[in-house]
Amino acid sequence: MSAPTIAIDRRPLPGGFLDDLSALFGERVHTGEAMRLQHGQSETHFAPALPDAVVFVRSTEEVVALVKLCAAAEVPVVPFGAGTSIEGNALPIAGGVSVDLSEMNAILTVNQEDLDCTVQAGVRREQLNEHLRDMGLFFPIDPGANATIGGMASTRASGTNAVRYGTMREAILSLRVVTPDGRDIRTSRRARKSAAGYDLTRLYVGSEGTLGIITEITLRLHGIPEAISAAVCPFETLGGAVDTVVQAIQLGIPLARVEILDAMQMMAVNRWSKLDYPELTTLFFEFHGTPDHVAEQVRLVGELAAANGGGDFQWSNRPEERSKLWKARHEAYYAAVNLRTGAVGWATDVCVPISRLAECIAETRRDLDGSDIPATILGHVGDGNFHVVFSIDPHAPQEMEEVEAINRRLVARALAMDGTCTGEHGIGLGKQAALVDELGDAVDMMRMIKRALDPKDLFNPGKIFAL
Amino acid sequence: MSAPTIAIDRRPLPGGFLDDLSALFGERVHTGEAMRLQHGQSETHFAPALPDAVVFVRSTEEVVALVKLCAAAEVPVVPFGAGTSIEGNALPIAGGVSVDLSEMNAILTVNQEDLDCTVQAGVRREQLNEHLRDMGLFFPIDPGANATIGGMASTRASGTNAVRYGTMREAILSLRVVTPDGRDIRTSRRARKSAAGYDLTRLYVGSEGTLGIITEITLRLHGIPEAISAAVCPFETLGGAVDTVVQAIQLGIPLARVEILDAMQMMAVNRWSKLDYPELTTLFFEFHGTPDHVAEQVRLVGELAAANGGGDFQWSNRPEERSKLWKARHEAYYAAVNLRTGAVGWATDVCVPISRLAECIAETRRDLDGSDIPATILGHVGDGNFHVVFSIDPHAPQEMEEVEAINRRLVARALAMDGTCTGEHGIGLGKQAALVDELGDAVDMMRMIKRALDPKDLFNPGKIFAL
Repeated sequence: MSAPTIAIDRRPLPGGFLDDLSALFGERVHTGEAMRLQHGQSETHFAPALPDAVVFVRSTEEVVALVKLCAAAEVPVVPFGAGTSIEGNALPIAGGVSVDLSEMNAILTVNQEDLDCTVQAGVRREQLNEHLRDMGLFFPIDPGANATIGGMASTRASGTNAVRYGTMREAILSLRVVTPDGRDIRTSRRARKSAAGYDLTRLYVGSEGTLGIITEITLRLHGIPEAISAAVCPFETLGGAVDTVVQAIQLGIPLARVEILDAMQMMAVNRWSKLDYPELTTLFFEFHGTPDHVAEQVRLVGELAAANGGGDFQWSNRPEERSKLWKARHEAYYAAVNLRTGAVGWATDVCVPISRLAECIAETRRDLDGSDIPATILGHVGDGNFHVVFSIDPHAPQEMEEVEAINRRLVARALAMDGTCTGEHGIGLGKQAALVDELGDAVDMMRMIKRALDPKDLFNPGKIFAL
Repeated sequence: MSAPTIAIDRRPLPGGFLDDLSALFGERVHTGEAMRLQHGQSETHFAPALPDAVVFVRSTEEVVALVKLCAAAEVPVVPFGAGTSIEGNALPIAGGVSVDLSEMNAILTVNQEDLDCTVQAGVRREQLNEHLRDMGLFFPIDPGANATIGGMASTRASGTNAVRYGTMREAILSLRVVTPDGRDIRTSRRARKSAAGYDLTRLYVGSEGTLGIITEITLRLHGIPEAISAAVCPFETLGGAVDTVVQAIQLGIPLARVEILDAMQMMAVNRWSKLDYPELTTLFFEFHGTPDHVAEQVRLVGELAAANGGGDFQWSNRPEERSKLWKARHEAYYAAVNLRTGAVGWATDVCVPISRLAECIAETRRDLDGSDIPATILGHVGDGNFHVVFSIDPHAPQEMEEVEAINRRLVARALAMDGTCTGEHGIGLGKQAALVDELGDAVDMMRMIKRALDPKDLFNPGKIFAL
């Protein structure tokens, strides 16, 4: 399968660099083809781009040493977590060193009274939640993949819980970062809020490794709610489903999750998961709170759904039943990809003001229906964020071109509605032209910041924008 | 009254500059002493520092023209809103032009379905809420003063509602900014979330005018809750009061406001407002939600308070009664300042992890009790943020020195607890040494960004840090 590539010079390693690297990291330096390929491909459609070496780091101090070595030798440095990003964000397109942080997977502190914790960048989301469960705490951000916390910070990840609990932007209290000039800084203290100078924390969240390497993250946590209910409801119309959510939010109902799956997506999950949901636009809800408050939320949302053309409003507060209700949502991505045998997935996302969401989804559906490539729509409707997942034939280059054209129209549609070209995947390699369409001159401000902090363009070069 | 000043060269205006300014802005250029003094002093204890001229701007285009003129002439530019900041944030200590945005006070759009609005920077908080009330919406951030939205964005303001609704960091969706090189940029689109590039919005929020001039702000709004209740409860111990709040937050009770006033502050309000509250550490609560949910919150918090040594838990859901209960909180600042006749106020704030809050307040109280200068403690306990308000004699320079020493100890205490030197006032002139104590090398990263975006140091020079 061909894929778009960003033209960037691959720089040859200076003589002796690998020896210097081995002197520092010994057997944790890998130059074999298999390891380089593993760090030089992504889960999506981008062409592989291999690093010259992969290094497994074990401490911030090691990252400082590595960064200083690479800076002196002018060798590119690309952080790597779980490799689950969507837009080729971690592909070392200029070669250099892929810095694998997966062995920095210690949960350093959990402060139960403060509802926060500090973890190393390689800690995975599910690992953290398993650790927290017995303390009655949880970390809400759930992008689907079992990503590392460092990777989620770098791409400003969000997912199904963001409507209630925010995104990585809101979830992070502080970062420890190794900067391009080899400093080991903390961006903030552990206080809940601060007005102390520029918001370096938020500058690094979403910077995709282009301004340094995040090594530790202090996160806000939440108490596991006393009661959780789930609900599923099909709708006669897309507008009715979106209106239900708009009205719920206006009423201040604190929806913990609210996901929309279009009819094609429901057909895909029925087929993949052997279910028999109505093949209509469907909302999946989750409610958190005290038992009384959850019961009230379920009742109010049920009434809104009924008033907006909702069908059978199924709900449950029992864990097994809840899982069953949400099964279709959990398996949506694989169901969509497997609409064709032997197909691969190609995913994109946009986010628009919720008042334009129904219109944006409807126009997108019409565009998708004009193609023979199967594609589904699913999204985090409370945020105005939705995904399109294409099921493409890896041996048909014209399908890639067609999907890219549809994606360009999708982005243009979202931007015309004052939306963004990506709600949660990041820019990486895939959305660079879209970023300029979206923010114009403001992208130059980003370049000025990048040049100031990384004047030699060594940190994940060629991502977000070309310098 | 003497006050600390930051040494900075006052630059003479180049010849002909005022003529060029008048050619653009006519009678909206002011060089008279009275107007310059009004824009060259603050509401707090800093020595006046007058601009060379004050210009009232009426549009972003005018700001662009002004910035280009000042940049070409290398004249400092300092934005001015309502002049209510605490740390001398808007004082033009290098002279130049004070850019008064108060005539840019139009509410440009309100999107009821999206729960957002876009306003010009000179719109005041109370003006906005009056405009929104009939639509059933409100803007929650309440720093006390009737500040401009532009000023609140520039200092990353928060206040009493932040525990539930966040600070200006969370409240802002997008900014329109005139950059130091005269570009007119939008930092983001109107979507609720985005992963598109560096978070320029959050970089500008809290940058105190040092990176450009914010001219328009897109804000998240909230539906006015169906029910609101207020409660007041005195506590035998400071620890009991703080534990009540910690436990409520751990249970997920969405406190809309929770304020702590210490015994000295309660004495001050009793005296000032002719009330007869017990002169004990006291919590003031506000609860938002559906009637059932608010009733449940009041009941649960009442139970927690009783279990933690709380006394008479008075609550009400009637507007007049609520106002009466909160009267002591609303008048707290003036009550504190007026502990002595003819005194002036001197306010500071820090923010610590909530697990350290009781200890931090108790140690601070002991420190205050060692001085003859009356001082009260009050704070946004849910955030771990508290203020000390001193009532000082403006004719006694040694009191200023004593207060500064106490403030230095307060900041050191907060930092030792992994807190921040300011939760919501900003750095301005007053907390620059504290910022370096707090973030060390990270302040150099801020300087690198400042130099990249404002290489001639023309935008509010000498604030946050000296270049």
